Amino acid sequence: MDPVSYLEANQERFLAELDAFLRIPSVSSDSRHAADVKRAADWLADEFRRLGADRVEIYPTPGHPVVYAEQHAGDHLPTILVYGHYDVQPPDPLDLWDSPPFEPVIKATPLHPQGAIFARGSCDDKGQVYMHVKAFEMLKQQGPLPCNVKFLVEGEEEVGSTNLEGFVKQYRDMLRAGVVLISDTSLLSIDTPSITVGLRGLAYLEVTVTGPSRDLHSGVYGGAVDNPINVLCQMIASLKDAQGRVAIPGFYDRVVNLSEAERAELARRPHDEAAYCESIGIRQTGGEAGYSTPERTSIRPTLDVNGMWGGYTGEGAKTVLPSKASAKISMRLVPDQHPDEITRLFTEHFLRLAPPTVSVTVTPHHGGNAAVVSTETPAYRAAALAMEDTFGKRPIPTREGGSIPIVALFQRELGLDPVLMGFGLDSDAIHSPNEHYGVLNYLKGIETIERFHHHFAALHGA
Amino acid sequence: MDPVSYLEANQERFLAELDAFLRIPSVSSDSRHAADVKRAADWLADEFRRLGADRVEIYPTPGHPVVYAEQHAGDHLPTILVYGHYDVQPPDPLDLWDSPPFEPVIKATPLHPQGAIFARGSCDDKGQVYMHVKAFEMLKQQGPLPCNVKFLVEGEEEVGSTNLEGFVKQYRDMLRAGVVLISDTSLLSIDTPSITVGLRGLAYLEVTVTGPSRDLHSGVYGGAVDNPINVLCQMIASLKDAQGRVAIPGFYDRVVNLSEAERAELARRPHDEAAYCESIGIRQTGGEAGYSTPERTSIRPTLDVNGMWGGYTGEGAKTVLPSKASAKISMRLVPDQHPDEITRLFTEHFLRLAPPTVSVTVTPHHGGNAAVVSTETPAYRAAALAMEDTFGKRPIPTREGGSIPIVALFQRELGLDPVLMGFGLDSDAIHSPNEHYGVLNYLKGIETIERFHHHFAALHGA
Repeated sequence: MDPVSYLEANQERFLAELDAFLRIPSVSSDSRHAADVKRAADWLADEFRRLGADRVEIYPTPGHPVVYAEQHAGDHLPTILVYGHYDVQPPDPLDLWDSPPFEPVIKATPLHPQGAIFARGSCDDKGQVYMHVKAFEMLKQQGPLPCNVKFLVEGEEEVGSTNLEGFVKQYRDMLRAGVVLISDTSLLSIDTPSITVGLRGLAYLEVTVTGPSRDLHSGVYGGAVDNPINVLCQMIASLKDAQGRVAIPGFYDRVVNLSEAERAELARRPHDEAAYCESIGIRQTGGEAGYSTPERTSIRPTLDVNGMWGGYTGEGAKTVLPSKASAKISMRLVPDQHPDEITRLFTEHFLRLAPPTVSVTVTPHHGGNAAVVSTETPAYRAAALAMEDTFGKRPIPTREGGSIPIVALFQRELGLDPVLMGFGLDSDAIHSPNEHYGVLNYLKGIETIERFHHHFAALHGA
Repeated sequence: MDPVSYLEANQERFLAELDAFLRIPSVSSDSRHAADVKRAADWLADEFRRLGADRVEIYPTPGHPVVYAEQHAGDHLPTILVYGHYDVQPPDPLDLWDSPPFEPVIKATPLHPQGAIFARGSCDDKGQVYMHVKAFEMLKQQGPLPCNVKFLVEGEEEVGSTNLEGFVKQYRDMLRAGVVLISDTSLLSIDTPSITVGLRGLAYLEVTVTGPSRDLHSGVYGGAVDNPINVLCQMIASLKDAQGRVAIPGFYDRVVNLSEAERAELARRPHDEAAYCESIGIRQTGGEAGYSTPERTSIRPTLDVNGMWGGYTGEGAKTVLPSKASAKISMRLVPDQHPDEITRLFTEHFLRLAPPTVSVTVTPHHGGNAAVVSTETPAYRAAALAMEDTFGKRPIPTREGGSIPIVALFQRELGLDPVLMGFGLDSDAIHSPNEHYGVLNYLKGIETIERFHHHFAALHGA
């Protein structure tokens, strides 16, 4: 059966199977869900076995297991390594979900008139991983595969891929391939295909300001004792200047500024500022002066407070002058900023900012390098041709704001060309309540991935 | 038996009875403790009945009940109204207590070498209320009372005395007196008697900054969407200038500045800056330029963040750009700042501070007027003479940083001269973990209150 007919004939089943996968609450950051994470790994491995993969393994790690599967088609054929993750973000805050996060429902939305699957992990990344599984099924029913294929699906992406580097180093030979294909990014829109060629890096820290050794009565002591929350607010406020630039000395030293030609190319990417604002409920965007919204979210670094807490946060009023205040602060990085160096610059600057009335600690969480992907490789060309087949348009190379630290890992450790061919939309609410993934995006993704295998094989032969 | 001998003979029992009172967790702000609050009211009323008061009543209110007791001694005699509260602050954070907050223990401390009672409410205000009950017992065993006495002990002081104004207005005739005597303040030290003649007022608000309509992925959106936590930090930071002055227009317009003579008088109050810092674990004090620590905590207004929260505050890292951030902010006020006006000035200014990328709400919690007490009344003179009897020194009139909004209520509604004769120390950790109250302070307090009744009667006859 030709691929399009096969997809049409099986799409209800493809959706039903994804539904089952999404029902497993594989929240990697929460130890209460450890058994669920394992169950998701087992479910995925069983699926590969059912499809008749040559080899299926679940590799334990000190954290959550790695699912590995492969199908060999011929020594002379090129090899595609597919990377994804079966773990998901915590669903909190639960009360903001319109339907339970692990009970998928399909509903139409303005951007998904043909319906979207609402569930944690639907887009990030179970739905996108499962496209590869279904494309594999389609390829298998056609006869011998056009390429060898290997699947590496981890369970710790949402907690920093802690054990992946060790795994990749240990199984370097097993993972040998010509490309690493990753679907964990977005399309510009369902009508505007795009391939991600840049990702930002990340430096994530936690800071604590301590004033008095205990919580004090704000009437008795207020006025003479520097309040750690007020102090932390001042310190955080001073981290950006009036132009929205990060005010840490040296922060921009290694930033690669784009040429006017490159910025002009980037500006060709369609962007509707009003629709962007409306989709996230803001009146207007903000950020670094002199840059557009697409630039601010891709080629420029950022500094965001991801969480802050201190003092009395219950109902009503308590007149406390608290002992401590804390914040989680992260910076998105661009080439050639290095997370370790930025972490050091932040820490040195932040400690210098502290007035002598308080003490400050800075604890690094995790980081990752920014990545830039060449558009000149056979892998990128195969992806572009595949998208042209299924969308009828050449994809636009884009740089995204998020971070996938493992891209740099695959480049460095395995020497692989990465292809970041994702099918989500920025508005799919990943990491948020009501995460969803378009049904059309899911089906187009399966179709495009199937095409990629054929084009990659053809370009290899050429 | 003479009062001193009676006190010596009974002090073990006086401590044991207070221990029983402190074991009742009468936390007024927590509905799970409503039955305990009621139990504390019953316990106190039973105690007045046991001592043979003429009349003992428990008045229900829409919140927690008022305990009322009185003993009439003669129509020609002056009347003392004693005010206090039997409710306590929440004991949180529990893990910072060295012993359970509702299981009193007596331990020596550097400032209390003869021991202090460690328990929530020991100083604020059960221990201080109970001194009046024991002074009443001592007076009764001497024969006819020197003055008529009325006790009004409420159960909602720690939640803003919500129902007290209505009660005072409704029972105006019943509460008629010549003085309202309150022990809910501090001594300068056990060797330096003092009477509080000024209290700061309070304006308490809660603010929320809302950016996007849902939590966003900080990689996808970071850089183009103003982060509500960063914005709130900037807004809060801008509320004070580099001199530590509150930067709300009009904030200082009604502040009564003390004359140099008055400031010189205030500077005579003993203050050991190094000991002050050491007692609360800070390296140095901070605050408004040009004022001393005692001034900053009494005659100058303040602005403190009492609590702040937003985004991800759990363990580890979550790369969220949050939808909202909130803070509880309070200002201590001095004469003649009015809480309603300050609340309005704050609100107008804070809304103006908001950038157009976010929306802001400001919700007032509660407020109270600052109070100034005359030292020229018979009531004050009686208190000064009583302290001279028991401490061997004339007390110093002081202004305190805390707020007792009901002082202004008694002045306004009942026309009463207040006497703020408290026996705690600033270092007693009220509203904090390990609240305590000196055993000597407790016993001296009972003795001094007994003397007050005699002096007030004598001055009335004079």
